[in-house]
This record gives sequence, structure tokens and C-alpha cells, in this order.
Amino acid sequence: MRADAQRNRARLLAVAEEVFTTKGTTASTEEVARAAGVGIGTLFRHFPTKEALLEAVLVGRLERIVAEADSLSQVDDPGEAFHTFFARVVGESGTKKALADALAAAGVDVGRATRQSGKDLARALHKLLGRAQGSGAIRDDLGVPDLVALLVGASRAVEQLGADPDAQRRVISVVLNGLRPSPPGGVTAT
Amino acid sequence: MRADAQRNRARLLAVAEEVFTTKGTTASTEEVARAAGVGIGTLFRHFPTKEALLEAVLVGRLERIVAEADSLSQVDDPGEAFHTFFARVVGESGTKKALADALAAAGVDVGRATRQSGKDLARALHKLLGRAQGSGAIRDDLGVPDLVALLVGASRAVEQLGADPDAQRRVISVVLNGLRPSPPGGVTAT
Repeated sequence: MRADAQRNRARLLAVAEEVFTTKGTTASTEEVARAAGVGIGTLFRHFPTKEALLEAVLVGRLERIVAEADSLSQVDDPGEAFHTFFARVVGESGTKKALADALAAAGVDVGRATRQSGKDLARALHKLLGRAQGSGAIRDDLGVPDLVALLVGASRAVEQLGADPDAQRRVISVVLNGLRPSPPGGVTAT
Repeated sequence: MRADAQRNRARLLAVAEEVFTTKGTTASTEEVARAAGVGIGTLFRHFPTKEALLEAVLVGRLERIVAEADSLSQVDDPGEAFHTFFARVVGESGTKKALADALAAAGVDVGRATRQSGKDLARALHKLLGRAQGSGAIRDDLGVPDLVALLVGASRAVEQLGADPDAQRRVISVVLNGLRPSPPGGVTAT
């Protein structure tokens, strides 16, 4: 792809994400093209169907989460890095879920579409979690599948609360405190 | 309703719950009638449609959860009572969700069907949570909506893990530890 075509594609994706986030995934491709200031033909050259566009937006979000996990794996305080990552992913999960739901409803196999970014994410989470556990900030009996389940569950809890930022922070802080090494008298897993 | 009709209804409900739990909510009313050892006509006299039967099973489960919360509100150790309640509800939530999903898919308004038991549950949770907070076992900035969100989220996390009881226990223990009053250096909600 030529450099200007790549730039156009990236710009369309950014605009599409913004439109789907603010107006919901029922927004039309025409709305996306209009918001991007291009004709619908240009949009369809890059994304032949609305499903292809939704899928590209979802994969883009997952890739950004991977990049964020990788980047946070470089910072000095592994526990703080882990907390930052967890809170951000859960805070942004609403739209990601809406995109995945829209794709699933359209008959797109979300698992297939996101397989590679899912693998990249598992690798990035492994590193982020391992560092935080190594520093003693996170209890060391948890694995990546546990962490994924907690990310999914915390996202569902936040969704349940609706637009109440204080309540969302309370619930995220419950999970983050629970991820600390078990205190004396704490609840053990057995 | 005569006493024997009430007994028949209760028995049909118990058998229906067992069948829907083990075979899934796609199991037919004929299967339920057969398992209960009654004719399909008897079943339909009590539950005119499959949706009515599913709804009654769901309401019955919610009522049992309310009864459990009320009963645990009587025991001596409020913190232990709260932990027991949380772990049981999350552990049993898989089927409840399957029932609710089947009803929603059949076009039944789950909210309306379960409105009264939902109110009873809020009242029971208020008491259970208040006692546990009064005893210092649970952080006192949480309200009933936060607790409901955490129950829903923990259930989603457990669902995500699939049939791995050890992982399910680890994830539930993360949330229960996080519900304790914030330790020194813990993550606050603000």
C-alpha cells in the first residue's frame, strides 16, 4: 500500500472508531465517510463492507491495548504499571464490547478476526503480570487466564453500573485491592 | 390452589430446573413432563407455555437467593455470612444467566418477570451488606448497586474461566479480598 493510501486508511479507522463510539455501532458507513470528509467510494476501497470496517476498528483497539501493555512493561514500578493498565482497559471496554457484539450479531467470527491480536495480548499480559508478581505487588498464584477473566468480569461490572464514574472507580479499586498478595486473615483460594 | 396442586406445581418446577440446568434451556417441555412422570397436559395446566415455565424457574431461583441472604443475615459472623453468600451466588450464577438469556431471546421482558423478586433481593442485600460493613468485614463506601455489579462481574469472570474450579475459586477470592476494608497502601476509589 502506498504511503498516502496507508494514511487515508489510518484516518478512516480513527474517524470510524470515533463515530461508532459516540453514535453506536448502528451508525452507517455513509456517516463515517461524511465525518472523514471522503466519498463512500473511497471508504469502500479500504473497507468493502461495514463488517470489515468494524472488524478493523476492533483489531485496532486490541493492538493498542497490546502496545499499552508492552509500553507499561518498561516503566519502573511494575505494580503501578499493572494497576494503570487494568483500570484503563476496564474503563475503555464498553465500546470494545459493543464492537464485538455488533460483529457477532452480523455473523462475523470475532474469535477468528481477532486471533492474532489475541495471541499478542496474551504474550503482553504474561510479561506485565509476571513483572508485577515479581515485584510483590500482585498475588503470585494468578495466571494470564485468571487475569483475562478478571478484566472481562470487571468490565461487565462497570457496564452494569452505567454512567457513574465514582461507582466505577469503587468497583475497579475493589478488584485491584483484591489482586494484592493476600493479607493476613485474607480469603485464600482453597 | 389446592394443596396437591401446589405440590404438583412445586415438583414440576424442581424437575424443570434440574432438566434446564443439566440439558440447557433448549430442552423441551415434553422432556420436563417425562422427567416429572406426568403428562404434557398436566404440565401445561400449570405452565401454559415454555416461557412461563422458564420464567417461574428463574423467579424461583431469585427467591431462593433472597431466602439465603435473609437466612445468612441471622448468623453470628456477618463477614463470614457475606463471603458465603457471595461465593454461592457467583458459583450458581451460570444457570441463572442461561435462563435469563433464554427468556430474553424468547422476547420475554426479564425485568418485568423478576421485578418483585428483584426488589426483595435489593432489600435482603442491603441488610446483609450493612451488617458486614457494621462489623468491619467489608469496606464501608460500597452500596447495594456496587455489590450487584460485583456479583454480576464475578459471575461473568467465572463464566469466562469455564469448568476450572480452582481458577474460579482464585477469582472469587480476589474479589472477596478486595471487598475488605482498604489496607494501608491499598488502592482507593478516588
